[in-house]
Amino acid sequence: MALPDGAFVLVEYTLRVKETGEVIDTTSEEEARKAGVYDPKERYGPRLVIIGEGRLIPGLEKTIKELSPGEEKEVEIPPSEAFGERKPENIKIMPRNVFIRSGVVPEPGKIVEINGMLAVIRSVTGGRVVVDFNHPLAGKTILARVKLIKLIEDVGEKLLHLVLRRLPPIIGEEDVKVDYDAKKKYAKIMFNEKILQIADMQAAKRLVVGEIRKYLANAVSELEFSEHIRIAGEGEKKQTETEAGKAEDKSGEQAKTEGG
Amino acid sequence: MALPDGAFVLVEYTLRVKETGEVIDTTSEEEARKAGVYDPKERYGPRLVIIGEGRLIPGLEKTIKELSPGEEKEVEIPPSEAFGERKPENIKIMPRNVFIRSGVVPEPGKIVEINGMLAVIRSVTGGRVVVDFNHPLAGKTILARVKLIKLIEDVGEKLLHLVLRRLPPIIGEEDVKVDYDAKKKYAKIMFNEKILQIADMQAAKRLVVGEIRKYLANAVSELEFSEHIRIAGEGEKKQTETEAGKAEDKSGEQAKTEGG
Repeated sequence: MALPDGAFVLVEYTLRVKETGEVIDTTSEEEARKAGVYDPKERYGPRLVIIGEGRLIPGLEKTIKELSPGEEKEVEIPPSEAFGERKPENIKIMPRNVFIRSGVVPEPGKIVEINGMLAVIRSVTGGRVVVDFNHPLAGKTILARVKLIKLIEDVGEKLLHLVLRRLPPIIGEEDVKVDYDAKKKYAKIMFNEKILQIADMQAAKRLVVGEIRKYLANAVSELEFSEHIRIAGEGEKKQTETEAGKAEDKSGEQAKTEGG
Repeated sequence: MALPDGAFVLVEYTLRVKETGEVIDTTSEEEARKAGVYDPKERYGPRLVIIGEGRLIPGLEKTIKELSPGEEKEVEIPPSEAFGERKPENIKIMPRNVFIRSGVVPEPGKIVEINGMLAVIRSVTGGRVVVDFNHPLAGKTILARVKLIKLIEDVGEKLLHLVLRRLPPIIGEEDVKVDYDAKKKYAKIMFNEKILQIADMQAAKRLVVGEIRKYLANAVSELEFSEHIRIAGEGEKKQTETEAGKAEDKSGEQAKTEGG
């Protein structure tokens, strides 16, 4: 079975550099911990992949496309299907004073940004600096173990995972609910009070809205984000007065008036 | 009529330094422009004041408290009811090298932060720096012209103004709607898609929630923030694909995998 473009799937995968065994990406918390690359800001567990979205390396997406639900595969992905070949023309020699003038002392191994591109300094000899614009993983063969957990057909579930992948892991599946009315093409994505702690929430919503317009415009014509907050009764009132009412309020009129 | 603590009122006011005529705060766009202190990030027009909240200088709040709707007053507010008296003990002499050590060259007129407090350097003589911790407006008599536009009784309207005062002026009154059900004590605050552009929205909501808990807990026991987005139909699809789906998506899996 070949999954069509736009299919929503949940996958588990681990990517390793063949040469060294180094784990470069994994959906498994256990694998991440074992490899010493565990990141508490990462959401582990089955990850949403939209076929054709192009967010994964091509060889990984192609492999996923051919999997059936429940199927697991190990594949070797050549550089051309991963991070590209190493190209000699991506290695440039630049005069040392170009770096000095912009306040950077060139040293081997240093990562620098030149014209908006990242590069690694390979060597510094006299006034000549060898700069490598190749991707650090260019030329590497990647070993991928990948399992297709589920093909998502339900629009509500698609929305849930579009939202979750944009949020830090402190927001769990239990903190997000989706109501979807297929007849009205109306979707309501609901959060609890925890969502007020997420700093870049509006940026996350903009991304989700863009993806809904791209992948789900046929199924969703109206969208509502809803955040539900229980206002404390008398019993809890005292505590919240100090905590929420005052501590945070540093940008108000008083400050303005005082600032003149 | 003396307004009780917790009363919500809309007021217009302009504060001037008596001595110089300098406008230090105004709710009027016209006054701000005339005085050359117009700020496009400011929301002009009648401003929400909650009696007892203490966000205004005491003399201004006291004046407002005694106004009737529609009434306008001009008052002279002494320093003790404005930004405080100038206190000689707030002027300190500090050794010059304390500044130099923290990378600041002390110069008369410079505003510095010392132990989290702002201060003005008054003079530098040899190794001695005279630092003034008095508020820049301490000792000034303030002239206030203030008008009570309206006493807000409606809970929905109170909520509307609590929200609006936390938002930049690009969000107008027409972009926010409040549904309030007094029986269920349920309030729904609704925004349109423009709200997705507001960067600190969750922080603004936290402040509003804190204020509802403090001032409106008797009237509101459940609160819902709702953001309504129209997902483009087929006609608009092409445009939004490029704009929203791709441009912003810089933090996704691809980047992560590449960074590995």
